[in-house]
Amino acid sequence: MTTKTKRFLALLLRVIALGATVAAIVIMVTSHDSATVLNLTFEAKYSNTPAFRYFVIAEAVAGGYSVLALLLSFNSLFSRLVLMMDVVIAMLLSSSISAALAIAHVGKKGNSHAGWLPICGQVPNFCDKVTGALIAGFIASILYLLLILYSLHSALAPLFALKP
Amino acid sequence: MTTKTKRFLALLLRVIALGATVAAIVIMVTSHDSATVLNLTFEAKYSNTPAFRYFVIAEAVAGGYSVLALLLSFNSLFSRLVLMMDVVIAMLLSSSISAALAIAHVGKKGNSHAGWLPICGQVPNFCDKVTGALIAGFIASILYLLLILYSLHSALAPLFALKP
Repeated sequence: MTTKTKRFLALLLRVIALGATVAAIVIMVTSHDSATVLNLTFEAKYSNTPAFRYFVIAEAVAGGYSVLALLLSFNSLFSRLVLMMDVVIAMLLSSSISAALAIAHVGKKGNSHAGWLPICGQVPNFCDKVTGALIAGFIASILYLLLILYSLHSALAPLFALKP
Repeated sequence: MTTKTKRFLALLLRVIALGATVAAIVIMVTSHDSATVLNLTFEAKYSNTPAFRYFVIAEAVAGGYSVLALLLSFNSLFSRLVLMMDVVIAMLLSSSISAALAIAHVGKKGNSHAGWLPICGQVPNFCDKVTGALIAGFIASILYLLLILYSLHSALAPLFALKP
């Protein structure tokens, strides 16, 4: 592959990852549902759960960084910095998805040992939206991992070619 | 710094990270506490919570990999593979800590919107041990991040020295 094709592939991965983070934020922020139990109406929204708030913030940071990285990656002077930052962002993404997924799992299945009841039966629309946001976030995280592995593979190739 | 010093520093980071994952597993697995409420005794242990089970498995995978990486890192033929695997393990570690932390936070503070009550008041020893395991896991994760940034810095240095 030529350097141009390689750079194009990396840019493409970055653009799709940006799209996935934006989708994750939009789906999570617009997720809400309400249920009426014994004449009491309660509302489920992402901002009630710290893990979901963290998810939105982390996806926003990753999205903002993706835009910056798209601009910086045109200048090869920054490529080492971009690769290092990619690793930090990939860890941030995997962290935010896992935290949100852990809470979503309790919402869906509950935890009988701790006495936490599932809530997805009452607010199914909320749970569906959260699931959608988690899938989008997961895609962004996998794309960042691919991007890093690909960058490492191509950036280190000349070094390894020198060694027998 | 000479290549020897660099390699020694990387090995040192890896050994401490291995120690931290082992500590995280031991503290998490030995954490249990019981409480008696209305003549009913209930037991809190890590295996009751999927996020804590995932934490132990992820730390065990990271610990096992650390041993393998220590052996492989003596042969420079594997250094690209080791660097790529380091990224995967760092993401796994950050993911496992975040999932466990999200659940531990509900255990400590509860979530009034979902009707989940905190349980740390009843089983304080369990909560203290989980906190300790999370701190050890967090240290392992930060060490892996440092190791990757350090490896990237030194592995890519010759490439960047070629470019003005």
